[in-house]
Amino acid sequence: MTQPNYFDSLNYPGILDAYPTGAAFLDTYRGMSRDELHARQDAQFRKVLKFAWQVPFYQRLWGDKGIEAGDIGSLADIAKLPTYSKSDLMASVEAHPPIGDFHGLDSYAQDERPCLIFQTTSGTTGRPQPLLFGPKSREVQSLLLGRLYALQGLNRRDVIHSVYGHGMVNGGHYVRETINHWVGAQLLTAGTGIETRSANQVALMQAFQVTAIVGFGDFIKRLSEVAREEGLEPGVDIPVRIISGHMGAESRESMSEAWGGAEVFDWYGVGDTGCIAGEGPDQTGLHIMEDAQYLELLDVDTGQPVETDGMGDMVCTCLFKDDVFPIIRFQTHDVSREVAGENPLGLPFRRLEGFLGRSDNMVKLRGINIYPQGIGALISAAFPVATGEYICRVTRLSGRDEMTVSVEVTETDGSLRDSIEAHLRTRLGVGIAVELVAPGETAAESGIETRQKPIRLIDER
Amino acid sequence: MTQPNYFDSLNYPGILDAYPTGAAFLDTYRGMSRDELHARQDAQFRKVLKFAWQVPFYQRLWGDKGIEAGDIGSLADIAKLPTYSKSDLMASVEAHPPIGDFHGLDSYAQDERPCLIFQTTSGTTGRPQPLLFGPKSREVQSLLLGRLYALQGLNRRDVIHSVYGHGMVNGGHYVRETINHWVGAQLLTAGTGIETRSANQVALMQAFQVTAIVGFGDFIKRLSEVAREEGLEPGVDIPVRIISGHMGAESRESMSEAWGGAEVFDWYGVGDTGCIAGEGPDQTGLHIMEDAQYLELLDVDTGQPVETDGMGDMVCTCLFKDDVFPIIRFQTHDVSREVAGENPLGLPFRRLEGFLGRSDNMVKLRGINIYPQGIGALISAAFPVATGEYICRVTRLSGRDEMTVSVEVTETDGSLRDSIEAHLRTRLGVGIAVELVAPGETAAESGIETRQKPIRLIDER
Repeated sequence: MTQPNYFDSLNYPGILDAYPTGAAFLDTYRGMSRDELHARQDAQFRKVLKFAWQVPFYQRLWGDKGIEAGDIGSLADIAKLPTYSKSDLMASVEAHPPIGDFHGLDSYAQDERPCLIFQTTSGTTGRPQPLLFGPKSREVQSLLLGRLYALQGLNRRDVIHSVYGHGMVNGGHYVRETINHWVGAQLLTAGTGIETRSANQVALMQAFQVTAIVGFGDFIKRLSEVAREEGLEPGVDIPVRIISGHMGAESRESMSEAWGGAEVFDWYGVGDTGCIAGEGPDQTGLHIMEDAQYLELLDVDTGQPVETDGMGDMVCTCLFKDDVFPIIRFQTHDVSREVAGENPLGLPFRRLEGFLGRSDNMVKLRGINIYPQGIGALISAAFPVATGEYICRVTRLSGRDEMTVSVEVTETDGSLRDSIEAHLRTRLGVGIAVELVAPGETAAESGIETRQKPIRLIDER
Repeated sequence: MTQPNYFDSLNYPGILDAYPTGAAFLDTYRGMSRDELHARQDAQFRKVLKFAWQVPFYQRLWGDKGIEAGDIGSLADIAKLPTYSKSDLMASVEAHPPIGDFHGLDSYAQDERPCLIFQTTSGTTGRPQPLLFGPKSREVQSLLLGRLYALQGLNRRDVIHSVYGHGMVNGGHYVRETINHWVGAQLLTAGTGIETRSANQVALMQAFQVTAIVGFGDFIKRLSEVAREEGLEPGVDIPVRIISGHMGAESRESMSEAWGGAEVFDWYGVGDTGCIAGEGPDQTGLHIMEDAQYLELLDVDTGQPVETDGMGDMVCTCLFKDDVFPIIRFQTHDVSREVAGENPLGLPFRRLEGFLGRSDNMVKLRGINIYPQGIGALISAAFPVATGEYICRVTRLSGRDEMTVSVEVTETDGSLRDSIEAHLRTRLGVGIAVELVAPGETAAESGIETRQKPIRLIDER
């Protein structure tokens, strides 16, 4: 008996039925009630839960809390289960090398076992973590991102330039599968500036008349400068109309302006879970793909659900991941906040403000939680002279923590520093010192030229 | 009407039926007559030919020679068609930017048009050439390589380390799709030494207990040295049992020894065509995948079919490429020779010696064709002290071309240089000067550390 290959395991019609995309996505979900959505979520959750009970990692995680299979009947009981994070996965890898005991592959009969799709995290903060997918969960992840890209206006006539990295990391491969399998646009897999030098990237973008760019905002912004250095006018010589990715410090307005007025869209996801939420044409927040991702926002200090309007850790349950590595209550340590009000697209989905910082990179100043990754956007939105580049430094002076943020600005006057400080004090509720620096001066510390996710906090405590 | 996405266009059962793999491959072809194989080839060829007549590039190429559709009835007439090469594709791109007029996408009704899978060549010798595939042709290419990997003994229980590059180039993406879709092994997409530093690569290989390595021989060999530098014993700490890729100068024996006795397999392919031929367990030559690739060997000087035993340019027709960019008589300018005798696996396929050099990098010395890429292997096979690293230099002295090859050796004695010179004179039929150098001395000129395909010829004429 031969084992199923990728396409055997995929069940393509089944995927499309459970997770419609394109026009079928809007047809299915527009006008659906929260109750009906919840019923769909619950049906998928039960499959994932059943699978997870066969996985040693969850048997241990839940068993240690005295939880038995009968205790969790449905999605309504999910809060009875503990959350876990990347560090728990790494502990599983340590105890059960090399890929841990969270994959669940041993629960299959030999001739039914799906093949394993394997990537790793970048491992910039230590040993890389294995990312494990089965053919079905891999393609549903890709479908979800393809669905968001379509919602944002990308289509088959686009020529899309991707600056997500390849190598062992997941990003570039994930986006490549998404665009090839679920968008059908022509894709340039340029990768990071290390894979394809920035000057070559803009030459390719011109040669192939790129209409969209996907990746991390910091590098996309940088490419607009490289284009100008090469004598190319972004938006004209390179007719970019859409940018979709992960906007960091730069404001949407400055990003759009840098690329000649392109529309800018944000989306959020994690290596393990894939795409979780993203903006649509309304641009009123990131629509959570709740038919596939059950997302909780938990208070960073108490672990309880946040009040409406509260910032909280995103904790994700992947309702589609029932083949390899079920994910139930994965604590991302990424912080966001729900957007209030009716969904303007008529979808039954909640919306998020997007990535606002990391709780494990959080600094508590006078009892207030400060997220260094969120500070740049606060500044750029209010001060157009800020380039979006910055770095925070926290020090301890006679037992008291103090933060200083070095902000790159293109020009200054006598009052700018005070104005930014006052703005931050109002928005954050605590004082942070501001230092103004010239463009490029934070690059060495932030690693903006070489890292996909620049460093925004230097902790000198 | 929506256009088909990747999976709609794929026709997975149809692919498996036309191009069986795994056990079905051997069951289908073992004992098949050349006549029956030819009938299968002819049926596929007619589909590709019909498509090509709708493609402007071929209308022009063939029309300029006065050829009309009725002139070519079957595969038996193929030699009436002209060959073309990469330079013709680049001329098409120049005239019809940005992707040329060889794709054939305009011949589809809008709602039947398949999506375009796009990569480029590395462009190390100029502007990168677009590589164009449809979903079907992409997956058949991957299937063919997966079929060869299976024949070589790779299976789902392997952990495979790939050092093919990603970014815009095709190699890494092609091999990733092959292994994920058609082998089902766990894949480490490490990429080149630029994507993942060599020391990190060997650390990953140990951490995930890699059992196979795929890529270009030169870098795979180099990784064995890096492993030792890191205190790891190749073959023990990293339990590699199979190496499959493109063996360059290093001999099979030295490669195997470097990796603790791993089996070494060679395969050959081109970016546009995908995998063409590869070794099987018999290791008596590279089996041409003739059910999918119709391969001719043409004399480098006359363009006529070579005599049995003659070296010739490989000219490839892809019998499966009937969706995007049909390929009929593509002149690779890669040179090989057929292996005589019965196919030891009982397949109806001819076998090749493998890549022996490039005819556009060929040097004519006293009327004899010398292929610099083939010289290293000649030396390594006979002289174990040669590391496999070398570089050729050709100069013109008073109207006469002379070649000198700098050969890295681990040790030497008074007669080694003369012995290598004598060996080359016997094998090549013309004298080449030899210079012995220490290990590592040719690296700066060959670019072995940074290039997937090292430079082996410096032309100073």
